Amino acid sequence: MRLGPRLAAETVGTFWLVLAGCGTAVLAGEQVGYLGVALAFGLAVLTMAYAVGHVSGGHFNPAVTLGSPESYTLVAAALTEIVLTAVFVFVILGVTDRRAPVGFTPLAIGLTLTAVHLVSIPVTNTSVNPARSLGVAWFDTAALGQSWLFVVAPLVGAAVAGLAYAVITGVDRRDVDIDGGAAV
Amino acid sequence: MRLGPRLAAETVGTFWLVLAGCGTAVLAGEQVGYLGVALAFGLAVLTMAYAVGHVSGGHFNPAVTLGSPESYTLVAAALTEIVLTAVFVFVILGVTDRRAPVGFTPLAIGLTLTAVHLVSIPVTNTSVNPARSLGVAWFDTAALGQSWLFVVAPLVGAAVAGLAYAVITGVDRRDVDIDGGAAV
Amino acid sequence: MRLGPRLAAETVGTFWLVLAGCGTAVLAGEQVGYLGVALAFGLAVLTMAYAVGHVSGGHFNPAVTLGSPESYTLVAAALTEIVLTAVFVFVILGVTDRRAPVGFTPLAIGLTLTAVHLVSIPVTNTSVNPARSLGVAWFDTAALGQSWLFVVAPLVGAAVAGLAYAVITGVDRRDVDIDGGAAV
Amino acid sequence: MRLGPRLAAETVGTFWLVLAGCGTAVLAGEQVGYLGVALAFGLAVLTMAYAVGHVSGGHFNPAVTLGSPESYTLVAAALTEIVLTAVFVFVILGVTDRRAPVGFTPLAIGLTLTAVHLVSIPVTNTSVNPARSLGVAWFDTAALGQSWLFVVAPLVGAAVAGLAYAVITGVDRRDVDIDGGAAV
Repeated sequence: MRLGPRLAAETVGTFWLVLAGCGTAVLAGEQVGYLGVALAFGLAVLTMAYAVGHVSGGHFNPAVTLGSPESYTLVAAALTEIVLTAVFVFVILGVTDRRAPVGFTPLAIGLTLTAVHLVSIPVTNTSVNPARSLGVAWFDTAALGQSWLFVVAPLVGAAVAGLAYAVITGVDRRDVDIDGGAAV
Repeated sequence: MRLGPRLAAETVGTFWLVLAGCGTAVLAGEQVGYLGVALAFGLAVLTMAYAVGHVSGGHFNPAVTLGSPESYTLVAAALTEIVLTAVFVFVILGVTDRRAPVGFTPLAIGLTLTAVHLVSIPVTNTSVNPARSLGVAWFDTAALGQSWLFVVAPLVGAAVAGLAYAVITGVDRRDVDIDGGAAV
Repeated sequence: MRLGPRLAAETVGTFWLVLAGCGTAVLAGEQVGYLGVALAFGLAVLTMAYAVGHVSGGHFNPAVTLGSPESYTLVAAALTEIVLTAVFVFVILGVTDRRAPVGFTPLAIGLTLTAVHLVSIPVTNTSVNPARSLGVAWFDTAALGQSWLFVVAPLVGAAVAGLAYAVITGVDRRDVDIDGGAAV
Repeated sequence: MRLGPRLAAETVGTFWLVLAGCGTAVLAGEQVGYLGVALAFGLAVLTMAYAVGHVSGGHFNPAVTLGSPESYTLVAAALTEIVLTAVFVFVILGVTDRRAPVGFTPLAIGLTLTAVHLVSIPVTNTSVNPARSLGVAWFDTAALGQSWLFVVAPLVGAAVAGLAYAVITGVDRRDVDIDGGAAV
């Protein structure tokens, strides 16, 4: 598929992820709690991946950091982001493997994001994604100063996941895009 | 399929949406919170779309406005309704596209409605659907006076979604009903 | 399939429904709330219907009444049970129709039960099923005196659903068991 | 498939189960409650079973005991673990049966674990799995002394499930691994 529609589909998907996830946190967080926020992030990805996964693969990465780590040390925050991004990317690689059940990919990826948020909102407010940290950080200079963490850590985690997946399954996905087509 | 059964199936589905969603809000809202209400709306659509999607396509639009926007301005309420209806209709167009995974359409649409409610119950009590606003508004004259908002905004949002989908995917769905058959 | 295995599978499924649903209400109800109880009932049916649906069809009806209607009149309780059983059975008929998506039947039925519980736990503690009312009613003489309601109302609701489904879809399911085989 | 990749996939899956489930309990338990913890355990298994089920079958058993039974007697705790492990293993046997719907196995198994946790966290903190009890018990000598319970009870429950499944369905799974291949 041409690049234009794919970029547009990713834009719509990322818009929905930020709107539903961060929107729920800001507008309804007090009422629905961390559980509601975790579900909002997960369901946003799940639903939009079903909607435009056939157009662009449904990555939706560029998003936003909900806040800044406070009671946890920077090392704890970095480790959390690295490990959870590794899990997230590992699941994505697994469920987009040609041997995985057909059609369930958006379900598994969306619910992984829910589980990731359930465990880590209290630690880092959860990013697992570099671009995501730069969206709302501008609204808070303290958060902006810590942005490098949410850029570097997820990239390290993703590299760990790719390596682990290749070693474990013997499948090297470096040249294959996660929607199954050749990577651009 | 003949029009009669399709109308009847839509009536049953809409009845279930209003009963489960608004019923949960009114009867159990205090115990289950906004999260429970959001799940009730989403699961009502998810389940009935599996049940009669093969009869009528499962639109279930005519519903009800839970209340009236209070602490938010009318502009904020209108924008919220426009944007969320656009997302909702965009997802519906995407998951009923012939390239989307078969069988997951009701799941994705229902959970989109859950995510839409999670983010917007505190702003507008959520409508995303014109007919929906006229069902219970009669019980509250203040709500009735604002009904035009919940009629106009979703229609604008739906038009935005249809245009965006056509531009992004190159697929013009105007003459195709969302159950895949020709539109009546 | 022979009757013995089917009876045994239904017994296991019903056991799990009562254990997970009523067990959650009694043991963890204070912590997880009505939302948790509603999910427990729904997930119990969803999971066991995937597990033994291929053996017995997965009805799991005989269960239990969580308590007795208190602040609502008997008429309100009866109407609630009739209407919700009608919806529940209507969904079951729809998703077991040969035109419904294959494989999603347990998902839709289980989540319908969750939605049914979300809306009606505060009214009748939810039965939607005659046998269900006789399981735990023995522990409470007041509940026992009202048991006839939870026997008669669901049967009326089920008849309404069967009739509505036949009228709407033109498909008469009276001689077809819901697992698709001939009714015993 | 060779044993190495299968062991590695199980290690990753078990790591995710302990991280998401116990991590949520410890780090976010106060905010998301037992419902959030139950969802975290279930979604961890659901997602990783979709990711590596095609590599190793997705067992992920070795995990951790969240705490030690306190207000319940040892007999109650043992019975709870036996019965819930029996249900859990029975569902696994059912949904991996060749007659069950294809692709839904991880969904059903993960949500069974959620339902199991919903009902039993207040009783035993839920183990349903021998190895699971030995992971974190080392941090608490009282828990360590009760570990035998969480080893013996799940094994008894699993045996009950295997026997029940064979008797009910006539399918003896002893020589068949749950991923459908021959057991090692």
